[in-house]
Amino acid sequence: MTAPTLSLADRMTDIRPFHVMELLRRARELEAQGRDIIHMEIGEPDFPSPPPVVEAATRFLARGDVHYTPALGIAPLREAIARFYQDRFGADVAPERIVVTPGASGALMLALAATTNPGDSWLLPDPTYPSNRHLVRAFEGVARAVPVNADSAYQPTVAAVETAWQPNTRGLIVASPANPTGTLLTQPEIGALRQSVRARGGQLIVDEIYQGLTYGVDSSTALKTMDDVFVVNSFSKYFGMTGWRLGWLVAPEGYAREIERLAQHFFISASTIAQQAALAAFSPACLDILESRRQAFAERRNTLLPALRDLGFKVASEPQGAFYIYSDVSALTDDSETLARRLIEEAGVAATPGIDFGDNRPRQHLRFAYTTSQSRLAEAAERIRRVLA
Amino acid sequence: MTAPTLSLADRMTDIRPFHVMELLRRARELEAQGRDIIHMEIGEPDFPSPPPVVEAATRFLARGDVHYTPALGIAPLREAIARFYQDRFGADVAPERIVVTPGASGALMLALAATTNPGDSWLLPDPTYPSNRHLVRAFEGVARAVPVNADSAYQPTVAAVETAWQPNTRGLIVASPANPTGTLLTQPEIGALRQSVRARGGQLIVDEIYQGLTYGVDSSTALKTMDDVFVVNSFSKYFGMTGWRLGWLVAPEGYAREIERLAQHFFISASTIAQQAALAAFSPACLDILESRRQAFAERRNTLLPALRDLGFKVASEPQGAFYIYSDVSALTDDSETLARRLIEEAGVAATPGIDFGDNRPRQHLRFAYTTSQSRLAEAAERIRRVLA
Ligand SMILES: Cc1ncc(COP(=O)(O)O)c(C=O)c1O
Ligand SMILES: Cc1ncc(COP(=O)(O)O)c(C=O)c1O
Repeated sequence: MTAPTLSLADRMTDIRPFHVMELLRRARELEAQGRDIIHMEIGEPDFPSPPPVVEAATRFLARGDVHYTPALGIAPLREAIARFYQDRFGADVAPERIVVTPGASGALMLALAATTNPGDSWLLPDPTYPSNRHLVRAFEGVARAVPVNADSAYQPTVAAVETAWQPNTRGLIVASPANPTGTLLTQPEIGALRQSVRARGGQLIVDEIYQGLTYGVDSSTALKTMDDVFVVNSFSKYFGMTGWRLGWLVAPEGYAREIERLAQHFFISASTIAQQAALAAFSPACLDILESRRQAFAERRNTLLPALRDLGFKVASEPQGAFYIYSDVSALTDDSETLARRLIEEAGVAATPGIDFGDNRPRQHLRFAYTTSQSRLAEAAERIRRVLA
Repeated sequence: MTAPTLSLADRMTDIRPFHVMELLRRARELEAQGRDIIHMEIGEPDFPSPPPVVEAATRFLARGDVHYTPALGIAPLREAIARFYQDRFGADVAPERIVVTPGASGALMLALAATTNPGDSWLLPDPTYPSNRHLVRAFEGVARAVPVNADSAYQPTVAAVETAWQPNTRGLIVASPANPTGTLLTQPEIGALRQSVRARGGQLIVDEIYQGLTYGVDSSTALKTMDDVFVVNSFSKYFGMTGWRLGWLVAPEGYAREIERLAQHFFISASTIAQQAALAAFSPACLDILESRRQAFAERRNTLLPALRDLGFKVASEPQGAFYIYSDVSALTDDSETLARRLIEEAGVAATPGIDFGDNRPRQHLRFAYTTSQSRLAEAAERIRRVLA
């Protein structure tokens, strides 16, 4: 049978899959054959959803009253998020500026659709979370890579942004902590980027989805000192709620009302169950659980980082957040994809090759996620050692 | 305080809100003042989610294992949907062609993003579900209205489509049963539309979100005889699961693999809890409940339709599906929006003015949803009678 001829929009040529999915498929195949695979490619916490959240969902479900909500989210959740900014970070954020979305994915989609004209470009660090450039492309924008390296903690500098800026540039998207590098921007660094972007009439989007997952440094928010940036966040990572599909966007004043129209048509509303459950995410009992999970991540990082270095993986800029280690594998291979395949086939260890994150020397890099237990991490290191020996 | 100057994409000028939201806000205000409002503007079943679905969700939640799923949806759900097509409609649909999405909204978004180049136009009946034209616009397509009237059951004819077709036309979106009119296309009619659209190299999208909610006629699917159309569906309406945010797209062969990439970036995946719960939606126990609800809707329709006619609302094309009655109010007013406001203020009855559904004589039309009980419908008719007297 020959493949049918598909009639696709041009944008589809530029929209690439997560390559790691191929690897994941291979991992599942090997597992089906009885092989034990240690999953270090997965960008989500291995912990179950926090019990207070699950209990809140169960209580809500008992009523069975699962109807659409307002497009911007239920008022108590928007208020709870605002209170969280106040209590934890001392940041004043009016609930009216908060748009509850289906994940940070939905928040990024709304921010980009609301601000991007065809041909407008967005500056994105390279490496970066892959969906950003595809969402820009989906709305006919142009993603322009700003190569970032270990010398600037894989974050864009003001100088690099100003060099890359063009008349059609709409803005800059950064993440802190970042995926795939786990590195942070300091608040003064974000402030300087903001100033440069705003001076050029552009917008700054700060993706704070890994907020709360920092080690050795306090986590923070751009909202503490800036009210003219878009901030993206999610219940997926720190709150351990990936499969619930819930996040939010904080928009500068006046934007939420506009974005509401888009949200109505894109989503009608975010999951009602997730919204009701998320009300319990900010309870002291839940925050205690999240703090102990943060500590577990910190310990894992402290185990994995020296173990990888010991094996010849270079980590030039130490990750201080998220749950990723982005390693330079040039001492071990000239092609990280080949190495990734070898690790999965021979060591039963899955990691993500750099190619998923951009064009900035992807074959030199491999991302390890410490989203598995200490003992599995130790086992992974031992297996990799045997393969590389 | 003056409003800040917003920097929005051009598309935002064309993206309009659901006007009924203003009315809903007013209804909530009146309710807060102690007024009793009968809600006939709401496009979702008033029933709670079916108990078997709620129980399945609760069981799944007890494990707490709420992680991301594959972007196309969990395999058992894709298989269950395929089986449902087979069992209920005798339609052969390979699970590989099914993309599980966050509601029909997500399915429409994926189908349009995957196929629409900037400047491509889509033909839409007018009146129609408002989000369609805004989703077309979001991806830089152009929505072209095909005015439809009672004489063709508010559905586009082949002749109308062929007249409206232009070189840049990408395809046609129809819904059966339709919102706001509740009218159906017969399978031969859909077949003729398909043939005309395909002969012109275009795509047909059939929105079957109200499938299962038909009265006096069997419900059906275009998939029984056509495998080169996009079919949109959802757990929102027949399955009574609006707030769960779950739907699906059936794509012609070869498309799902392409659409998978878009789904990864747009949504990562649909709600895991909703997917797990939806497995119970096809159980005999659940289908029994849904059948009794369908009968309740049928009875409501049989109450409301003569009552409205009696009050001077003309319904020239009888609705046979969904839960809407689209009435011509020209004997009562020259502006349906004014009448809608009067009904809410004076009768405490909320209905949706035609303006939400397009430009085809919207001021002459008002949509009533029978998403409330028989006794409330009777009460609404009585109150309207007093106001119009
Ligand atoms: C940097 C970053 N932003 C956004 C997302 C989207 O996550 P979600 O839609 O689950 O909130 C991810 C997911 O991995 C991410 O790493
Ligand atoms: C015709 C039609 N299509 C699609 C939708 C979207 O519904 P959902 O995203 O809840 O499946 C609706 C909602 O009212 C509708 O009426």
